[in-house]
Amino acid sequence: MKYFSFSIPQFTSPHLGVLSAENTIVDLTVKGLANNMLSFLQAGENSWSKTEQILNQTGPKYALKEVRIHPPLLRPNTLRDFYAFEDHVATANKNRNRKVPEQWYQLPVFYFSNPHSVFGHEEEVPMPKYTKALDFELEIAAIIGKSGRDIPSEKAMDHIFGFTIFNDWSARDIQKQEMAVGLGPAKGKDFASSFGPYILTIDEIIDRSDGRPGVYDLAMKARINGEEVSSGNWKSLYYSFGQMIERASEEVTLMPGDIIGSGTVGTGCLLELTKGQGPWLSKGDIIELEIERFGVLRNTIT
Amino acid sequence: MKYFSFSIPQFTSPHLGVLSAENTIVDLTVKGLANNMLSFLQAGENSWSKTEQILNQTGPKYALKEVRIHPPLLRPNTLRDFYAFEDHVATANKNRNRKVPEQWYQLPVFYFSNPHSVFGHEEEVPMPKYTKALDFELEIAAIIGKSGRDIPSEKAMDHIFGFTIFNDWSARDIQKQEMAVGLGPAKGKDFASSFGPYILTIDEIIDRSDGRPGVYDLAMKARINGEEVSSGNWKSLYYSFGQMIERASEEVTLMPGDIIGSGTVGTGCLLELTKGQGPWLSKGDIIELEIERFGVLRNTIT
Repeated sequence: MKYFSFSIPQFTSPHLGVLSAENTIVDLTVKGLANNMLSFLQAGENSWSKTEQILNQTGPKYALKEVRIHPPLLRPNTLRDFYAFEDHVATANKNRNRKVPEQWYQLPVFYFSNPHSVFGHEEEVPMPKYTKALDFELEIAAIIGKSGRDIPSEKAMDHIFGFTIFNDWSARDIQKQEMAVGLGPAKGKDFASSFGPYILTIDEIIDRSDGRPGVYDLAMKARINGEEVSSGNWKSLYYSFGQMIERASEEVTLMPGDIIGSGTVGTGCLLELTKGQGPWLSKGDIIELEIERFGVLRNTIT
Repeated sequence: MKYFSFSIPQFTSPHLGVLSAENTIVDLTVKGLANNMLSFLQAGENSWSKTEQILNQTGPKYALKEVRIHPPLLRPNTLRDFYAFEDHVATANKNRNRKVPEQWYQLPVFYFSNPHSVFGHEEEVPMPKYTKALDFELEIAAIIGKSGRDIPSEKAMDHIFGFTIFNDWSARDIQKQEMAVGLGPAKGKDFASSFGPYILTIDEIIDRSDGRPGVYDLAMKARINGEEVSSGNWKSLYYSFGQMIERASEEVTLMPGDIIGSGTVGTGCLLELTKGQGPWLSKGDIIELEIERFGVLRNTIT
């Protein structure tokens, strides 16, 4: 299933929708299933199983062109971002004239980011006034559907509702300044995260599993103003989503609506592609992130 | 005013309370003011101004001994923690054989932490199974009451509802391992944050202002099992809360229920006091953090 948050001008707030076989969005909110994506996740598996049935009923349907698409979760609970692709970590460290720290191989590492500056497909992302080095990052985001604590890797897929494309916008000049102090990135990342266009459920990609929990053989690409600049694959993850969720949930409860990012796929940002030197993104640039079966997440910088 | 989240066994969820002149907790939820602290903050200044009036009415009141105290915000929206006391930063860096990075003097730096593992006064804090180096941190937390974006330092106090004591529990072994990778602390901090016992409004400390926005001449102390180990003062902040809020709100909207931590006051953790060598906290230890006028925040490690 492909789940959308969407609206038409008549709505007072975005509705939850699902894509039909005819490529129309079926309104699940009008059908009483849930007010929005977060309440749908919180309602649990019994509710999720009703989508199929509703798809076959008559009711409001919208062509994709008619609707505005919002980020699939309007306000994630929390946002964790890992650093799980070895190629990216190796190149990022090489640009700082150092090897991958040995600690990176010991355990999957993440940071918390701001869950309340989120953008959806086709929404305009404002360039922060304090940066001259705006970058994109091509990532995968797992959406937690079922709460859990101390979740072992091999059980992690029971807690993931689905995945979506994630652009972890980054201000490289500020990030560098912050990281020198040792607390990791904050203002370098907190101004924008794009997600979408939809959440795809796991059953739709299971045939591409590489055997590890939450790792699939799916191509990942990025384009700037129509020109392909990045080409990677989900299966190049060093740490699986299973391992990330095991780590994130140690001694901490994960909740429906929490988002877990993968970190950037190899080649998936200008920091890598330009050896940290730029040129960086400019106002008016159109960034498209594509993952096989997940569609395209497109944003324009304003 | 001293605002509490509290409960008695008959409640289905914690209520919002305020301390009366007779040292009893007046139930503001029963009086219809707000379900809880977060909804009270969200309701805005018109609601806040009604507290005084309700204090003088008849209605349910409880002795402090009768109630269970919860964290003042049961689930903060977001949790940012700064690094704003120079003494702490200098000692922490000295323990790693380095000077304070020059970038620290250029701008106030923070990281995002987990807002959903919070503990209140007298609640037991479980020792994470993965650490042999549990530490406390003596900090101040500002509670955002009014939303805002790009807030200049001199306007920041309009957006702070009040302050409370904050213990930013830390697993130093894990934190060290994580920070070597460069993304800052995550599992080293995400398992527990204690707040309380109450939120004190700004009017109650304004006479101690040192002139900078959100900086007061108020003593800060920590005790382990009754023995004083830390002694600092709020006014030793290098960056004011005004500057922190200016920084946090650049290009980002702060919301009611967001929490902004100060970072650790000088001498306010074992990392400093033992030069990073320990001994660290053990199960059964009782940690008391005290700030003048804010009472004592006490937790036992289990």
